Amino acid sequence: MEFNIENIMNKIDNPKPETWSDILKRPTQTIDDIEVTVKEIFREVQKKGDEAVAKYTSIFDGISQDNYEVSLEEINEAIALIPNELKEAIQLAKENIYKFHKAQKTDRVEVETIEGVSCWQEKRPIQKIGLYIPGGTAPLFSTVLMLAVPAEIAGCKEIVLCSPPDKKGKINPAILYAANLCGVTKILKVGGIQAIAGMTFGTQSIPKVYKIFGPGNQFVTVAKQLATQFGVAIDMPAGPSELLIVADDTAVPAFVASDLLSQAEHGTDSQVILVSTSRKLIGEVEHEVQSQLEVLPRKAIAEKAIENSKLIYVENDQIALDLINEYGPEHFIICSEYDDFYCNGIVNAGSVFIGNYTPESAGDYASGTNHTLPTNGYAKNYSGVNLDSFMKSMTFQKISEKGIQNIGKAIELMADAEGLQAHKNAVTLRLKSLE
Amino acid sequence: MEFNIENIMNKIDNPKPETWSDILKRPTQTIDDIEVTVKEIFREVQKKGDEAVAKYTSIFDGISQDNYEVSLEEINEAIALIPNELKEAIQLAKENIYKFHKAQKTDRVEVETIEGVSCWQEKRPIQKIGLYIPGGTAPLFSTVLMLAVPAEIAGCKEIVLCSPPDKKGKINPAILYAANLCGVTKILKVGGIQAIAGMTFGTQSIPKVYKIFGPGNQFVTVAKQLATQFGVAIDMPAGPSELLIVADDTAVPAFVASDLLSQAEHGTDSQVILVSTSRKLIGEVEHEVQSQLEVLPRKAIAEKAIENSKLIYVENDQIALDLINEYGPEHFIICSEYDDFYCNGIVNAGSVFIGNYTPESAGDYASGTNHTLPTNGYAKNYSGVNLDSFMKSMTFQKISEKGIQNIGKAIELMADAEGLQAHKNAVTLRLKSLE
Repeated sequence: MEFNIENIMNKIDNPKPETWSDILKRPTQTIDDIEVTVKEIFREVQKKGDEAVAKYTSIFDGISQDNYEVSLEEINEAIALIPNELKEAIQLAKENIYKFHKAQKTDRVEVETIEGVSCWQEKRPIQKIGLYIPGGTAPLFSTVLMLAVPAEIAGCKEIVLCSPPDKKGKINPAILYAANLCGVTKILKVGGIQAIAGMTFGTQSIPKVYKIFGPGNQFVTVAKQLATQFGVAIDMPAGPSELLIVADDTAVPAFVASDLLSQAEHGTDSQVILVSTSRKLIGEVEHEVQSQLEVLPRKAIAEKAIENSKLIYVENDQIALDLINEYGPEHFIICSEYDDFYCNGIVNAGSVFIGNYTPESAGDYASGTNHTLPTNGYAKNYSGVNLDSFMKSMTFQKISEKGIQNIGKAIELMADAEGLQAHKNAVTLRLKSLE
Repeated sequence: MEFNIENIMNKIDNPKPETWSDILKRPTQTIDDIEVTVKEIFREVQKKGDEAVAKYTSIFDGISQDNYEVSLEEINEAIALIPNELKEAIQLAKENIYKFHKAQKTDRVEVETIEGVSCWQEKRPIQKIGLYIPGGTAPLFSTVLMLAVPAEIAGCKEIVLCSPPDKKGKINPAILYAANLCGVTKILKVGGIQAIAGMTFGTQSIPKVYKIFGPGNQFVTVAKQLATQFGVAIDMPAGPSELLIVADDTAVPAFVASDLLSQAEHGTDSQVILVSTSRKLIGEVEHEVQSQLEVLPRKAIAEKAIENSKLIYVENDQIALDLINEYGPEHFIICSEYDDFYCNGIVNAGSVFIGNYTPESAGDYASGTNHTLPTNGYAKNYSGVNLDSFMKSMTFQKISEKGIQNIGKAIELMADAEGLQAHKNAVTLRLKSLE
């Protein structure tokens, strides 16, 4: 049976720059309905603590439990359940993630800006952080590695993990195994809005944290946004996952197609884009997508995402680069003769994958880079999760008598010009004492 | 006339830890009323662009203007108006800020996590940023330096500055002078909510930006929060300015008092706290505050803030440190015999000032550190503005044939365990091609 892919994939030939923003438009998310529910649950958790958490766990997860914390027994049970080869895979991934994030550690930056004025910058860990790991059919234990490993390197004191229980009141064993392996200090069987609210306000069972990380469905996304109104920081705003590939005739069409599909299987709203200077390659990738799609277990999801995908032909690499920077993809794969051109020129992307043997899956799991990345165009203004996401930069200064004499006059003049006399006076008093 | 300061300053002797959170409570801000106004103006600016900006400029700033951009002529006029010694002061401050922020530049971090798997992290500038500088009686030209200098070092392409016009349609000359000195690419005479909305959506005159920095009144604060819902990043959430000083008998009471007052003059809601292991010092500082307060031009404001200030006696330095970390002050001055103890132990503070000759004003203006810092307890989870605030961290990876053979099996196993077959397939295809 010949499946006519050309009807479902959108090919766009040589689009004019003024049409790019339309072509590259992401789906808008409607969150207004959800917001009311989320606010309501926040109010209740703030007021009633565990009682409210229990109520919503019963409503959303369909089970009632009186103890949220995962016990050592449950963790040992989980460890026993994981096949050895998966354990080894997780350990290898952990090691690579550790190496890459450990290398991001920065030294104290110290400068004597002028004689006697010593300024330095140091990073200190955020003391209490929360990780949210969704449950459901795809247990994202890889995300546990991506968040807990750098948190431990940073030196966060409390690393709390919340994940929803299944109908039997359990968390997927691979999640427990990874959490235990990576220094999570407390694992709680709480999911959804009630988990985010719990970590925002603190309840009898759930510790209050200063920053919440991790993916989730629309409810969790809106809950994280709301958490920021109560003083909690979050990793970044969320949106559907995205992949943009730039490829020319040096690319292997089957590989390109497999990468597009690995993005497409994430969800029906996944964003999948191929940009190419070769019409021939576009045609070949189309056919490959078709044949590979047929045998995928998550075909229904991937097919839907592929329907919204775009195959864009452009005349040259400069146009391609401009278009890609306008889009700002979360994941950006370069399979091009001119990979240096793209590496040097890309300013808006979350993570960049270079060459035919660098699939996005490598970064999703095991190469060492982080997979928590800015979507929805946020690559223009947000970093992906990295070691610094778990730390704060603080500055220090120590000024000697000589130092205040060197900059005192300038401070007095500037404070005076800004109309802040007490600011000036703090310096004047000190200068006078040295006369 | 003896002014009885003891009636207005709150002395707290040896408070129990369970009372700290009450003692250290910040004023809650009610933003609900403001939110409606802000949303309304955002909607209108999004829809009508400059027309709406003109309308609200006329309402809030009381003037109508048809051109928002500051001309080269106006800049030259401003330059001529600034006294030479103020120019030199600004230049000295700029140089120190430049040195300290330039030193924060990080190299590319590159790691071969396993043979054939090369991962690296690079920082790229946010392409378009917006700076908001309030107008009014205290023209914060120092904030222009604090934001534009690192933006230029980072390499931001467009640096847009918005500041409200006065009744004559002018921006304070010191602001124009500083903006011109520090590489701002466009200066616009637009203020308040309409400026933030303009930079969020872009209008005929105001460029759309990716991240907005800078202080402002409650309206601007709420507008910046709202901007984040439209894809724009902001420097940090805002709150009233704060200073906490820890001091013992090695401190000079007059200096301590002058620092407390320099914080107090910012606004009636300024947070001013002294923590000490010496009751004697607390008494001396009280008297000094009284006499210095009398002669301040902004006495009315400072007095009000001093009424809400707290002088807290604690038994030892460990208790002091714990209390300070629980508060998480924006500015933290250490005048103590044990300054190393505090420097090493402080984990929640924006900027730290060490010793008797290091007033907060130094960091506000000219030492080189940034004065845009987390308030309201946000020092627990946010960095102060630094070079990285103007950049995004991006990751790159390049995997060789050998590399994918080294990590391929682990990716396959993990993808399989997460139920993501297409992720696995992207690796399987490549491994097969190498058999």
